[in-house]
Amino acid sequence: MSELRTRTVATAAMIALFDDVATIAGAIRFEVALARAQAEEGVIPTACAGEISAVAATVRFDSAELAEAAAFAGTLAIPLVAAIRAELGPEAARVLHRGATSQDIADTVLMGQIRGAARLLAGDVARMTAALAASARAHAATPAIGRTLLQDARPIGFGLRIAQWHAGIAGAAARLEREVASGAALQWGGAAGTRPDQDGRAAAVAARLARALDLADAPPWHARREGVAGIAAAVGILIGAVAKMARDVALLSQTAVGEAYEPATAGRGGSSAMPHKRNPTGCQVALSAAVRAPGLVAGILSALPAEEERGIGGWQAEGPMLIDLFLIASGAVDAMATVADGLAIDPAAIARNLAAAGQGDDIGESAALVDALIRMGRD
Amino acid sequence: MSELRTRTVATAAMIALFDDVATIAGAIRFEVALARAQAEEGVIPTACAGEISAVAATVRFDSAELAEAAAFAGTLAIPLVAAIRAELGPEAARVLHRGATSQDIADTVLMGQIRGAARLLAGDVARMTAALAASARAHAATPAIGRTLLQDARPIGFGLRIAQWHAGIAGAAARLEREVASGAALQWGGAAGTRPDQDGRAAAVAARLARALDLADAPPWHARREGVAGIAAAVGILIGAVAKMARDVALLSQTAVGEAYEPATAGRGGSSAMPHKRNPTGCQVALSAAVRAPGLVAGILSALPAEEERGIGGWQAEGPMLIDLFLIASGAVDAMATVADGLAIDPAAIARNLAAAGQGDDIGESAALVDALIRMGRD
Amino acid sequence: MSELRTRTVATAAMIALFDDVATIAGAIRFEVALARAQAEEGVIPTACAGEISAVAATVRFDSAELAEAAAFAGTLAIPLVAAIRAELGPEAARVLHRGATSQDIADTVLMGQIRGAARLLAGDVARMTAALAASARAHAATPAIGRTLLQDARPIGFGLRIAQWHAGIAGAAARLEREVASGAALQWGGAAGTRPDQDGRAAAVAARLARALDLADAPPWHARREGVAGIAAAVGILIGAVAKMARDVALLSQTAVGEAYEPATAGRGGSSAMPHKRNPTGCQVALSAAVRAPGLVAGILSALPAEEERGIGGWQAEGPMLIDLFLIASGAVDAMATVADGLAIDPAAIARNLAAAGQGDDIGESAALVDALIRMGRD
Amino acid sequence: MSELRTRTVATAAMIALFDDVATIAGAIRFEVALARAQAEEGVIPTACAGEISAVAATVRFDSAELAEAAAFAGTLAIPLVAAIRAELGPEAARVLHRGATSQDIADTVLMGQIRGAARLLAGDVARMTAALAASARAHAATPAIGRTLLQDARPIGFGLRIAQWHAGIAGAAARLEREVASGAALQWGGAAGTRPDQDGRAAAVAARLARALDLADAPPWHARREGVAGIAAAVGILIGAVAKMARDVALLSQTAVGEAYEPATAGRGGSSAMPHKRNPTGCQVALSAAVRAPGLVAGILSALPAEEERGIGGWQAEGPMLIDLFLIASGAVDAMATVADGLAIDPAAIARNLAAAGQGDDIGESAALVDALIRMGRD
Repeated sequence: MSELRTRTVATAAMIALFDDVATIAGAIRFEVALARAQAEEGVIPTACAGEISAVAATVRFDSAELAEAAAFAGTLAIPLVAAIRAELGPEAARVLHRGATSQDIADTVLMGQIRGAARLLAGDVARMTAALAASARAHAATPAIGRTLLQDARPIGFGLRIAQWHAGIAGAAARLEREVASGAALQWGGAAGTRPDQDGRAAAVAARLARALDLADAPPWHARREGVAGIAAAVGILIGAVAKMARDVALLSQTAVGEAYEPATAGRGGSSAMPHKRNPTGCQVALSAAVRAPGLVAGILSALPAEEERGIGGWQAEGPMLIDLFLIASGAVDAMATVADGLAIDPAAIARNLAAAGQGDDIGESAALVDALIRMGRD
Repeated sequence: MSELRTRTVATAAMIALFDDVATIAGAIRFEVALARAQAEEGVIPTACAGEISAVAATVRFDSAELAEAAAFAGTLAIPLVAAIRAELGPEAARVLHRGATSQDIADTVLMGQIRGAARLLAGDVARMTAALAASARAHAATPAIGRTLLQDARPIGFGLRIAQWHAGIAGAAARLEREVASGAALQWGGAAGTRPDQDGRAAAVAARLARALDLADAPPWHARREGVAGIAAAVGILIGAVAKMARDVALLSQTAVGEAYEPATAGRGGSSAMPHKRNPTGCQVALSAAVRAPGLVAGILSALPAEEERGIGGWQAEGPMLIDLFLIASGAVDAMATVADGLAIDPAAIARNLAAAGQGDDIGESAALVDALIRMGRD
Repeated sequence: MSELRTRTVATAAMIALFDDVATIAGAIRFEVALARAQAEEGVIPTACAGEISAVAATVRFDSAELAEAAAFAGTLAIPLVAAIRAELGPEAARVLHRGATSQDIADTVLMGQIRGAARLLAGDVARMTAALAASARAHAATPAIGRTLLQDARPIGFGLRIAQWHAGIAGAAARLEREVASGAALQWGGAAGTRPDQDGRAAAVAARLARALDLADAPPWHARREGVAGIAAAVGILIGAVAKMARDVALLSQTAVGEAYEPATAGRGGSSAMPHKRNPTGCQVALSAAVRAPGLVAGILSALPAEEERGIGGWQAEGPMLIDLFLIASGAVDAMATVADGLAIDPAAIARNLAAAGQGDDIGESAALVDALIRMGRD
Repeated sequence: MSELRTRTVATAAMIALFDDVATIAGAIRFEVALARAQAEEGVIPTACAGEISAVAATVRFDSAELAEAAAFAGTLAIPLVAAIRAELGPEAARVLHRGATSQDIADTVLMGQIRGAARLLAGDVARMTAALAASARAHAATPAIGRTLLQDARPIGFGLRIAQWHAGIAGAAARLEREVASGAALQWGGAAGTRPDQDGRAAAVAARLARALDLADAPPWHARREGVAGIAAAVGILIGAVAKMARDVALLSQTAVGEAYEPATAGRGGSSAMPHKRNPTGCQVALSAAVRAPGLVAGILSALPAEEERGIGGWQAEGPMLIDLFLIASGAVDAMATVADGLAIDPAAIARNLAAAGQGDDIGESAALVDALIRMGRD
């Protein structure tokens, strides 16, 4: 296990959301909610659901032991359900996990975590876009040299650059919200996706279960993973949009340019060899995330052609990749929200670079574009 | 140039949409529409716009020569604009391409092609989903053995498998339509994205230009590429959804399984070594596309952190990748639409395999799920 | 932290090799070995090196605290070096970490871990190829139906299929060994890669340091990462070669085919919903790894164009990706070594499927090819 | 078909190597060489081989028609072999293509093209490394500010930066040469990879065939693709190494830095909007290639777990991806060889930036490292 590797790239809150304690709790919650929904629809006796709830409330798992057992069995659900079942009376033991399969637990628990993860990201995105909108407006009409292909080009309003970051990040966040709203759905289908043994009440049980777990209701999607792929792509795009800002801040803070800097924080961005240096550490976190994200998205896309009713290898690989995407997104968004909050802008350097470029100071319709770009995120 | 490589993976219609003739025509159309919009807003003289239109209507380019010139210059716009300009009088020559830059042409032409490409795909998707909906309903209650991790599992309605394909493809097509509607937008910003030299009429010129080119209106997005990434991901997901059906058809048509086959077409799917064989050639096309698509999407995502006002290397790489995505999507969707249309289902083999599995014939609530899955695509 | 996610895909030995305890120990070892090498070359006083060794032998770190500090500082080296320095006298404190930088530690420690990781993999590969060679020879002349594009094609010797697995895995393992031998090299360059403050003894210090750490000697490669990329690609190819075997075993063990199976192990490969099922769990682990590996390799390749003397974002992203590659490789190789060891082959099913294909039993020169393929791995 | 897209990213020579004329000629050459080898080993009558050679020398194909036929049949070999066969007498018609299958032609022709492609690249690499070695030595002791995380760090010898480019590119080129030497091998196995119908002379026929086609001899590798993957990864790494140089040149030529520039070439690197600008067009080509390459490599890696004797979808997707890799490599290597040849270095700017950094001028052991790095490529 490596906290070193994980904490360097992800926030503590996001790590906690996906840790083993949370995963095991989610799996137990699934079994309880399923039993309750089935009891409410008359599919299993109410007393059984009560007994399952009671046992679930007290059962304790050792994460490390359970991890070993899951690795051996090939799935978490088998040892977990067996352990709960062992503490139930015979009738409750028989109806526990009725019409469900391992993948139902794996997918549903993951989707619940993703709902929470998307909310975490949305909070940091809001902090970031608020700061960026303010900066963009404040510098909308400040003439600065624009740069294309890394060469000085024509003047722009300095705020236009920031407004572009804003629009990119806000647009990406909106896409993620949309994809999670539809894609983070209940998975419940049983062994082969037919919702067996529900006395014709499957749709009603599913609706109750989705509501209890705060997930979208949907038919089973064991081998139909385009919702997952949509979420993954949206996270990847959000990371890219945040890294675009990071790329620019890193370029602007080059010694020879000096137009903008990450906020100075004692002890952050230092160098073990050069005490004088102020490294763009927040940008580094975001740019690193953007190096990793595309391959994670590609991996998830490559798992789409799953075999028949439930595939082999594909969906089992999705979980770790999707979680990695949210983990690195958390680090990138948090780091750049802090950069946005405290972004240091140096008007003297901006003016000096503009003058050196010798391209005048006609910034076209930058101010109107700043306004339009910031409003894009609102509509 | 390779027609061999391209025609094996893409439809002739899609290839034509992105060929050099179409690209050059699109670039000329951009210049004409820009001049007209500027004339209508009083930014340039009406006579100049007329002269530009007239020259554009008659100018002819040799694709191969222009390709050499573009490769040397680093962009198509430079030799193309120079050639048009050479045929104009001095005033029209001066106002041609006013406030525009090479990337404006490249991006806007590409987005126009993508609008058309998305419409082409939508047509084949509609053909495919109509056929799948009919098959799914016809076999909704036919008991068949379901398979998970490639092992016989529990019975399902055979149509449930087909309805899952339907829902996946319809959902992916809806995502693509949504992404194209917002992402395939006018690109017009000029050298550094400020829309210079428009006498304060830039927004009005942009609105006219977008309308003339049948694109969404938007502020410039030279270095804010999340719309492109969204489109790319949506195409990648559609390819994956289609390939999921291809995977299943290929597995179902294994000699030892034999439950469904691609339609027999004389001369298609043969083997140069084995005249007896009927290869699942349509499935092969779709599965090949699904091998290529994830890496193309990843490439486009990795270009998101573009440098400053217009980046170096990233957006220039996007075009070929995005076009490849649409090309291979066309081949995959067309091939599987044909498979869907003529899918041969063998009820005797289905029954035989079900009996051999010895898992009874309880298909749970398959029929209701078929109905729900087909309706998903409608809502 | 998630042991659940990690243990399902990686061996305990590989996890331990890359855990925080091992990483911190490696970092301390680097500082001690550097000081000793410098003392031996007269660059720092021998007494200082002794003092550094003594402190290093007793200093203790709390992984979680250090992870927090590293996340804040942006690198592990800063808090770690500071903590050691705090326990040293003034002269030793001054010469500690002389001419080194954070990235030197990060890269060198990682390369040391990779040496060990490659050795771990080689052990399991040897177990696997020995078993495969024996199986291939035993079944070299057993006629079986060959399958292409998932259709019955022409007969093959059953052992030819196994010999192909062998050759692919052995070839991939040889490539990995080659890449690690040259690519897993000492990183030591100091702040900007010039090996400053070494009194002209840098090459000699480097040679001693490399020897002490059991790594190849090399000039600094802070921003020249093709050795890392070569290792990553080689691991990715090995995973793919192992997954090719997994794909085939999974297909062969389909209920309708039944020619070969994973060894039966009580409690492994079960289903939470279907007690009768025997899932190809080893194959699933390997196939999952092969879904994840290509994107990890792509991420590492995309980091190659690093900025100037030490880049921003790229190399920092490599570590987690490279480690993930080795982790999932360990799970895949171990799982398939166990499958190779106990592969159950059913000659009756092979004969039945061959007869059903009606293609005779001419297996061409399968036996000679088996021999040639197995010898390939030896040369 | 798009010459516009292809010529912007690839050299004319590389495009020609993979065009349809070359591919068709290669396929014909395979059939002739196979017949001759079989005749020499007594497997088919000598007269038949002569007749096949004679027909092959005169048969003409229309690329566009053949592309249509191949797209319909699913493989080029079927219409091509049929067309040749139609012109042969009955006995030669019967023995044509004996013991061969479509994939044998596809893979072998591709490998022949790759041999040539690797030689093309090696020529441009040699031009590039010669120029870089000279530049590195000339500036080995010129103090310049080194930069890390895009911030001014400590001084380096300016030539050290160039020597690092050299070592990276030379190392990557050596890897590619090694992978092509072993991986670009004859593919010949017949329908299911058993080399049927060769009267026990298969190994001898294969040896002759490989020699005639200038390829490595090898057992069939229809579904064992790690050689292809190794070549693909090596090309991807070479592109990355070249793009590392491009990244640095682009950063060094920023207006505010100005330490080095692409050579000025009239008409190249212009801007359609800004006549004053000199864009780093060569760097753009290389950086674009590096955006595309990782996804192409990932696609090829993801095809490794091919199904049974010859897979469905995977190897069919490899060809276009591998060819794209060589195409974009050609453009990148050629562009940067030209940049290396004419790299303009500005000592005044270097001195000015060094002074501004205020870090002195101690360049450590840069000169010795330059020497070591340049020698690396030689050993």
